[in-house]
Parts: sequence; C-alpha cells; structure tokens
Amino acid sequence: MREFFVTVDLVVLTIRESRLHVLLVERRYPPFEGEWALPGGYVLPEEDLTTAAYRELVEETAIGTGVHLEQLATYGAPERDPRGRTVTVAFLALVPQVGAPVAGTDASDAAWVPVADLEAGEMRLAFDHDDILADGIERARAKLEYSPLAAAFCPPEFTVAQLRGIYEAVWGHPLDPRNFHRKVTGSAGFLEPTGRTSTVDGGRPAQLYTRGALDTLSPPITRASG
Amino acid sequence: MREFFVTVDLVVLTIRESRLHVLLVERRYPPFEGEWALPGGYVLPEEDLTTAAYRELVEETAIGTGVHLEQLATYGAPERDPRGRTVTVAFLALVPQVGAPVAGTDASDAAWVPVADLEAGEMRLAFDHDDILADGIERARAKLEYSPLAAAFCPPEFTVAQLRGIYEAVWGHPLDPRNFHRKVTGSAGFLEPTGRTSTVDGGRPAQLYTRGALDTLSPPITRASG
Repeated sequence: MREFFVTVDLVVLTIRESRLHVLLVERRYPPFEGEWALPGGYVLPEEDLTTAAYRELVEETAIGTGVHLEQLATYGAPERDPRGRTVTVAFLALVPQVGAPVAGTDASDAAWVPVADLEAGEMRLAFDHDDILADGIERARAKLEYSPLAAAFCPPEFTVAQLRGIYEAVWGHPLDPRNFHRKVTGSAGFLEPTGRTSTVDGGRPAQLYTRGALDTLSPPITRASG
Repeated sequence: MREFFVTVDLVVLTIRESRLHVLLVERRYPPFEGEWALPGGYVLPEEDLTTAAYRELVEETAIGTGVHLEQLATYGAPERDPRGRTVTVAFLALVPQVGAPVAGTDASDAAWVPVADLEAGEMRLAFDHDDILADGIERARAKLEYSPLAAAFCPPEFTVAQLRGIYEAVWGHPLDPRNFHRKVTGSAGFLEPTGRTSTVDGGRPAQLYTRGALDTLSPPITRASG
C-alpha cells in the first residue's frame, strides 16, 4: 500500500458555430507549463469526487447548474504524472452554448477549441489528456445514439432542426433531415411538444420541444444511417 | 492536495445453477472483520489500475485469461473507509462457470452468492460495496441489451437455448424462446454458426454458435419485451 495523489479532469463539450468544441486550459505552472490540457485539479480532503468535478467546472466556466456531468473513467498509469503517482477521475460535462471561458488560478489562458482540430492532430495535450479526450468524445457520440442527451446541448426549448444540428456537430457529418425528423419524433419519450412554435430560421413555423422523460431511446438513432 | 489510498474492487459475476451469482469474500481483518465484501485490494506502486484488477481476479478466482474485465466506476466519498481517505476503482468481471472460489490472503472465506439473495436484503456488504454491486449488476443487465456480452458467460460454443438461459439469469425473468431465437439470430454479427450441433439437452440437435465480431447489437434486445 502507498499513497497516491487524486485529481479530477473534465472533458467539457459544447457546440459553437455548429461545431463540437472542448474546453482547454493553458498550464501556468510545470509540469507541461505553457502547454494545453483539460481543466482539472486536486480533490480536496473533505470533497467527494463529483463535488470536486463540479467545483472545477464552476471555476473554469462559471456555470455549474443545469449541466450534464457524468463520470467518464479513471486513469492511473504509473508514469502519467511526473510529480508522483497520480490517479485522475475524468468527468464528461455537456453544456449549452456559453460565453468565453474563464482561466482558473492555475491556468494562464482558457479556450474553446474545435474537436476536429484536435482529432486532426493539430495540437497535443499535456499528460494523457489526448486519451481522456478521445474517450470523452466517444462516450458523447455513443450516448447520442441511445439517450436523449443531445438535449443537454440545447436551450430549454428547441426545434427538431436545432437538435439535428447538435447531432451533426457531435458526430461530425450531415444527417438526412426527413429521416432524422421521423426518427426523433417517432422515438417515444424523447421529445415533448410544447405547443409553441419558432420562426427563428425565417422559414415556416417549426414546433418547439422540450426533452422528454425517458432515459433510453428505443429504437436508438444510429450513427451509421442518416 | 493530500495523499489518498487507492484500491481496486471487483464485481465478479457468473451463472451457476441458472442464477446470477457474485463473488464475495469474508474479511479476515478489521475494518468490517468477519463481514462480507467484494474482493479487492490496494493498487501496488508500479501497477496500472487494470493490472491491479487482473491480479486481484487471479488471486481470488484462479482465472484471469479469457475473462471480460471492464472498469465500472470510481467511488471516493470522504468517509467510505475508516482507515483514511480511500478512492476505489471498481471493475466488472464476467466469467464463465468456474469452480469454488479461493479465499485470498486477506479473506477467511470466499463464496459465490446468488445476486437475488443480496437484492432481497438478506445480506449487507462492508464499506459502500452494496452500492458498487448494484452499479455492477445494472451495468451487466444494460450491456446485455446492446452488446453480445452475454457470450462472456458461455463456453466457447453454445446453443441459443444456453444463451437465453444467460439472459434469463442476468435479467431475472423468463424470456419467450421463439422471440429470443428470432432476435438473436436476426441481429447481424451477434452469433456465428459453427456448423456443428449439440444434443446436450436430450432434444433434437441444436445449432452451436460462437460469439460474432460486432460490438453493438442493432437492434438491441430489450429487457422489457420477451
């Protein structure tokens, strides 16, 4: 038995300009000083893991309520942190579109970065954060298939076209509008009509929906088909 | 920042006598001396988390290869271990039917216990292991819906009736044999026919299958319907 450091790291995803973005911070201190990383920090002595994750999320984004936050996985390779044996519990947060991020005390800068840029290898993250980010993105992409979680990226009321925009941004490819409309309105419990309409896109009025009560989509909406 | 102890705990599930069982150990030492718990132990200094989980699995069951092992979740409430701040990374292992378990060095006894007995409240586990066990069982039940993971409980070649027995044991209720047969043989990539047959049940010869290559069942086999 030996003692470890325990941290939380956050994969915070949002949609900006129709593209999936992740929140990154530029590290103010060594190790990896000046490099970009996922936001995170040490778990405090009296803090549960989820409490620590919420605290970091609020520090970095100034939002904390109404956010989808779930545990992603825990990473503990012996050499992953040069300061000593450190286990990090990673969380996935999905947030509706928000403003510019706030650099926390241990970050010199913070930014929303397009996931596509990272996946194209244009940037390498500190520690094992590339692996954690890849796992977080895959979790989000998979969950959109069998859960109504895409609504976590939306305002409280949204149109089917807005929802499709979320799916297209997260999955990174266009979807057939008719097929998508048929699937999401045919999936019992996914969407609740509000009775109100939106004309925000300048076209004919579109139904406004809220997220329904069900946790699992049956049938799922699969990535392969439009 | 403060130092923590880090452990792994295992939810090891198998099917015995057509019922879902979990591996439990009776604790030899305090805290919770003489009480039953999930098997587990401290992560060693140079060990990755998954390596530690495999090591504990081999120590407790004498099996380690060909076993499905996945990270379940991490539990770190401040007061969960009276010895000090301890974070435990829980793993889920699904094993084909095996013999009697082996008590490790820190256990005075080990046993396969029917999950139904625990769910009926006949036994309380040490630490927060009731919560970890509940999460492990739910993960296994959910995964049988959308993955071919039930085959992890089977011998390398099995009949559809044997596979249905796994589903019935894990979900805890009977399934309609015809519907089940239609669904699993109609789910592309779930099962590969071997061309061989089995007459083990004394009835007419039944096709023997191996697990197919696909990771996700489409459509899923849902718990609600038979």
